[in-house]
Amino acid sequence: MKVLGILGSLRKESLNRKLLQAAVNLGPEGVDIEIFDRVGEFPIFNDDLAGDPPPVVSEFKQRVRAADAILFVSPEYNHSIPGGLKNTIDWGSRPSSDNCFNDKPAAIMGAGDGMGGTVRMQPHLRQVMLDLNMHTINDELLVREGASKFDGRGILIDEKTRMAVTAHLAALAAWTQKLR
Amino acid sequence: MKVLGILGSLRKESLNRKLLQAAVNLGPEGVDIEIFDRVGEFPIFNDDLAGDPPPVVSEFKQRVRAADAILFVSPEYNHSIPGGLKNTIDWGSRPSSDNCFNDKPAAIMGAGDGMGGTVRMQPHLRQVMLDLNMHTINDELLVREGASKFDGRGILIDEKTRMAVTAHLAALAAWTQKLR
Amino acid sequence: MKVLGILGSLRKESLNRKLLQAAVNLGPEGVDIEIFDRVGEFPIFNDDLAGDPPPVVSEFKQRVRAADAILFVSPEYNHSIPGGLKNTIDWGSRPSSDNCFNDKPAAIMGAGDGMGGTVRMQPHLRQVMLDLNMHTINDELLVREGASKFDGRGILIDEKTRMAVTAHLAALAAWTQKLR
Amino acid sequence: MKVLGILGSLRKESLNRKLLQAAVNLGPEGVDIEIFDRVGEFPIFNDDLAGDPPPVVSEFKQRVRAADAILFVSPEYNHSIPGGLKNTIDWGSRPSSDNCFNDKPAAIMGAGDGMGGTVRMQPHLRQVMLDLNMHTINDELLVREGASKFDGRGILIDEKTRMAVTAHLAALAAWTQKLR
Repeated sequence: MKVLGILGSLRKESLNRKLLQAAVNLGPEGVDIEIFDRVGEFPIFNDDLAGDPPPVVSEFKQRVRAADAILFVSPEYNHSIPGGLKNTIDWGSRPSSDNCFNDKPAAIMGAGDGMGGTVRMQPHLRQVMLDLNMHTINDELLVREGASKFDGRGILIDEKTRMAVTAHLAALAAWTQKLR
Repeated sequence: MKVLGILGSLRKESLNRKLLQAAVNLGPEGVDIEIFDRVGEFPIFNDDLAGDPPPVVSEFKQRVRAADAILFVSPEYNHSIPGGLKNTIDWGSRPSSDNCFNDKPAAIMGAGDGMGGTVRMQPHLRQVMLDLNMHTINDELLVREGASKFDGRGILIDEKTRMAVTAHLAALAAWTQKLR
Repeated sequence: MKVLGILGSLRKESLNRKLLQAAVNLGPEGVDIEIFDRVGEFPIFNDDLAGDPPPVVSEFKQRVRAADAILFVSPEYNHSIPGGLKNTIDWGSRPSSDNCFNDKPAAIMGAGDGMGGTVRMQPHLRQVMLDLNMHTINDELLVREGASKFDGRGILIDEKTRMAVTAHLAALAAWTQKLR
Repeated sequence: MKVLGILGSLRKESLNRKLLQAAVNLGPEGVDIEIFDRVGEFPIFNDDLAGDPPPVVSEFKQRVRAADAILFVSPEYNHSIPGGLKNTIDWGSRPSSDNCFNDKPAAIMGAGDGMGGTVRMQPHLRQVMLDLNMHTINDELLVREGASKFDGRGILIDEKTRMAVTAHLAALAAWTQKLR
C-alpha cells in the first residue's frame, strides 16, 4: 500500500516534519509512506490559472493520484489549517472536474508545542476533506507538548506516541483495504 | 473611520473583488475603505523567516495597524478559507508578539455562485479571528448566487444586497465606535 | 437493509417529519426505513443515571443496534443541533463502553424554511458522529426553503428534492454494503 | 455587576458544578455570580409550545434578562454541547422575537477529565451564541485533567486555574463595562 504523506510545515526543525519521518519508520509492514514536502513551492492559487497550472501542481496531482491513501501531517496555525497547506489543497482540487483527492482514503496527524496538539486544526481539515470527497478515518492523532516527544536528532522517542503512530497507520491501512 | 478591506481572491473577474468595490462605494458617510489586493504576492509562510519577513508582509502589517477596522472579503474554497488568504493571515500574526490583527474590530463579507454564499468559510474565518484576538461583529453577510447580483461591468445591482452591504458597514462602524 | 430514521423535531407540522416520511416512501428497493419519533420522551441526560437509564433509552439503544444504518433527519436550532436530538444522542452513547452508535454507517438530512437548509447544523452533527465512531457518507442533503417543497398534506412534491432523497438513500445503502 | 452562571451538567459530583462554585468565590470585586442549575427541569423543546412555555422557561428567561452578563459553565459531550444545555438555550431563544440572550455579554468555562478540557465543545457553543447575538469574550478557559484540580470537598485548589478563573471573570467584567 502506497501512502503519500503531505507535510504542512516549511520550518526546518518542524515537529510535523519529524512526526512524518517517524510515520515513515513506524508504519506497519506493507505500508510504504512517501513524503511530499513541496508545499512552499506552490504559487498562491489563482482560479484564472486553474486550467493551466504550474508544473509543481501537475506533479503533485500525479503523486496524489498514484497513492492508495493520503496522510496529512500538519501544524495548526491560528486555530486552523496553515495557509500553505490549504493553498496546495486548493490547487489539487481544481478544476472541479479534476479534483485529485476524489475518493481517496485518508488520515490526519498533527503535532504542536502546546496542550492542543492541533485539536482545532483537524476539524477544519476534515471539513475540507469532506468537500474533496476523501474518506477520512475516524481516529485522531494529536501530539501534544511535541517538543518533549522527540530527541535532539529529531527522533520520536515517546513510546506511547510511537505506538499511536503505528496504530494510526494500521487503521488507515485497514480502512483503505475495506474501501477497495 | 479607516477600514482596510482585504481581498481573498486573485481572480480578475472575482465576485468578491466586485463585492469589495461595492463596499467602497456603499459605505456610510465617514467610513473610508481602502483595498488590499496583494494576497497573491506573499510567499508561503515559513516560521523560520517570521522574524525577518519579506517587504510585502511588513507593508501589509503596517496597513492593518493603521486601520481602525478590518473587512475580509473572500470566496469559499473547499468549504473553508482560501489558502492564499489564510497564508496572508499567518504572516500577519507572527511572531506572536507582533500580531498585527490584535484587538482590531472586524467584519466578514463573502460571495459565491452557489446557494451557500460562503456560509461554510465564514465560521472557519471567525475561529481564526478569535485566535487573532479580533472583535468580529455578529452580523453575517452572505451573497448567494453571486453571478446574478452584478451587471456586466461588475457593478452590484441587486438592491437588497446593496442595502445589506451598507447595513453591514454601518454595523462595523458602530461596533468600532463602541469599542474605542 | 434496515435503516433507523431518527427525527430531531417534535413539532407536529415539522418539515423534517415530512422529509423523513418522504424518505420512507422514496428509498430505493431493499431499503426499509423505520421512524424513531420519541426524542421528546427522553429526560435530560444525567451521567449519574447512565448506568441505569429509563426504559425509553434502553428501547432506543436496542433499535439503533438492530439497524444496519442510521439516518438523522433534523432541523437546525440556533446554528446547531436541536438540544432534544443531542440529548437523545448523549443517552445513546453512554456509558462509553455501551455506545449504541459505534461503527454504524449513517447519513444526515435536514430541512429548513430559510436558505441555509440546516447547513450549519450538519457540520456540528458530523463532529458528534465522529466521536460516536459512526461512518457518515460524504453526501449532504440540504432542503432549503422547505415550506415550498411540500404540499398541503405534507407530501414532498418538489421533483428535484425527491430525486435527491432517493439518491441520498442509495448512497447510504451502497456505503453500508461496502463497509460490511 | 450581576452575572448569571448557567450550569450545563446535572451530575452531582460534576467538575463543572465545582468550577462554577469556584467562579462564585473567585470573581473580582463587584462581580456577583448567581447560579442557574435547573437545566434538568426543562422539557424537550417543542416549537408548537414556544408561545406558551412551561414556568421554568419563563423564570429562566427572566433571570437571563435581569443579568448584566451570562457565564456558561459546561462539560463537553461527544465533542459538542450537552443536549440538556442546548435544550435550555433553544427554549430561551424562542419565539425569535423574544430571544432572552439578545445583546448579552458572555463568557464560557469548561472542565473535563481528559486533555481537551472542552476544547471541542466551546467552538460549537460560540457558534450558537453568535446566532443568539450574544457578545462573547475572546478569552478561553479550558480546565484540563479536571479531577486533579479539585480537592475532596470540591474546592478548586490548583493555583494556576484559580488565577485563570479570576482573570476570565475580570475580562468578562471589563467587556461588559465597555459594551454598556
